[in-house]
Amino acid sequence: MDTRKHVEVCFTPGEYEYFKDEYEIVVVIDVLRATSAICAAFDNGVKSIIPVATLEEAREYQKKGYLVGAERKGEIVEGFDFGNSPYSYMKEELKGKDVVLSTTNGTKALSIAKEAENVVVGSLLNLDVLCEWLAKQNKNILCLCSGWQDKFNLEDTICAGGISEYLINTGDFTSDEDSSIAAKYLYLSARDNPLGYLKSSSHRRRLKNLNLNEDLKYCLTPNSSNSIPILKDGKLVKL
Amino acid sequence: MDTRKHVEVCFTPGEYEYFKDEYEIVVVIDVLRATSAICAAFDNGVKSIIPVATLEEAREYQKKGYLVGAERKGEIVEGFDFGNSPYSYMKEELKGKDVVLSTTNGTKALSIAKEAENVVVGSLLNLDVLCEWLAKQNKNILCLCSGWQDKFNLEDTICAGGISEYLINTGDFTSDEDSSIAAKYLYLSARDNPLGYLKSSSHRRRLKNLNLNEDLKYCLTPNSSNSIPILKDGKLVKL
Repeated sequence: MDTRKHVEVCFTPGEYEYFKDEYEIVVVIDVLRATSAICAAFDNGVKSIIPVATLEEAREYQKKGYLVGAERKGEIVEGFDFGNSPYSYMKEELKGKDVVLSTTNGTKALSIAKEAENVVVGSLLNLDVLCEWLAKQNKNILCLCSGWQDKFNLEDTICAGGISEYLINTGDFTSDEDSSIAAKYLYLSARDNPLGYLKSSSHRRRLKNLNLNEDLKYCLTPNSSNSIPILKDGKLVKL
Repeated sequence: MDTRKHVEVCFTPGEYEYFKDEYEIVVVIDVLRATSAICAAFDNGVKSIIPVATLEEAREYQKKGYLVGAERKGEIVEGFDFGNSPYSYMKEELKGKDVVLSTTNGTKALSIAKEAENVVVGSLLNLDVLCEWLAKQNKNILCLCSGWQDKFNLEDTICAGGISEYLINTGDFTSDEDSSIAAKYLYLSARDNPLGYLKSSSHRRRLKNLNLNEDLKYCLTPNSSNSIPILKDGKLVKL
């Protein structure tokens, strides 16, 4: 009997319904930029991040005095303190604070996955440290890509493929779904030069139009972070 | 101004709602095995194929005396004449006939796309002849993969990537979506040996369990067919 655990990849939040309930750990991925920003925030000593799906919820927290980040379609929403640029989360004033975050894709995926037994945050920034931890858990793992406005995106898929590749190479994991196999292939062709590989990606081009080249370079450079954000009682905290 | 037309890839019928209405031609793809069987049927001189989404509709046609193929989860549905094996459609008795077909994924995708201006059927079997025709139409094209039970599958994606690659190489087409870019990458790694590439594919393994290796070899060998099936008034006919 095959006792290996599964590591599978779900390309979009919309497809999560076909996967859920079979995995004890869900890794939520939004490389550009929500989950990268979340890793950067914990590296900077933020105490917790409260992900909220809607701007209404975000405004409620703002009224209560929280620092609140809100991004839609790549830009900071008017009236909020910052968006989802990782650099916004490196500021001194955020250290030790509870921060609220609402983004186009990433916090939507976090919200969809919240009933799972364990929800952690993945990005290229914390790829190795996250994979080392996942490898020790002996649990079935689903990588949930946030996508872009309900559609597939390449950077989240590559990150998910990297997690799958690492775990399968331990010998303790296997993948069955075609989406997982495709993600692994795409990761293997991208890994030596993620930035070059993604140059043709639609999302990357979109961000470039917003003059966010520094964010792109930061988010697509693997392993600068040692944080594994995990969801506890509706809040992300550092594991 | 960029006057090139778009060729994009939609991975599953469930995501079609995010793409529809922007494309004058939808290419429905279900490599294993519905759209391959449809090409084989027209090669054999079948007059028309009436795709129906439900078994209830299929039974209604059967009562009226039609030859009816029906497949669910890779097997012939009890009480029907055949399933979706291409070999079933090569029989002498089908020549000149109107045939009804209902399958797990392919006819569902056809049904979802039916309101599009033009709906054609793609498979690896008619890849070149279809691409040559598409290249001449000067229209925006969406490749709609049928997937497997609402999830992504590798063989349809590779076929869609092959169509995109061909059309982009003409210089008259471009792709914007990350799904299209990924499909093209996957096609380029698979094209020299589709059967070998797909050996790890979940769907292929599923079919292998059903002892359908001959079907697999047939469906994954490009360019044996010169048929372009097109939807006219609810029926597929040869263009």
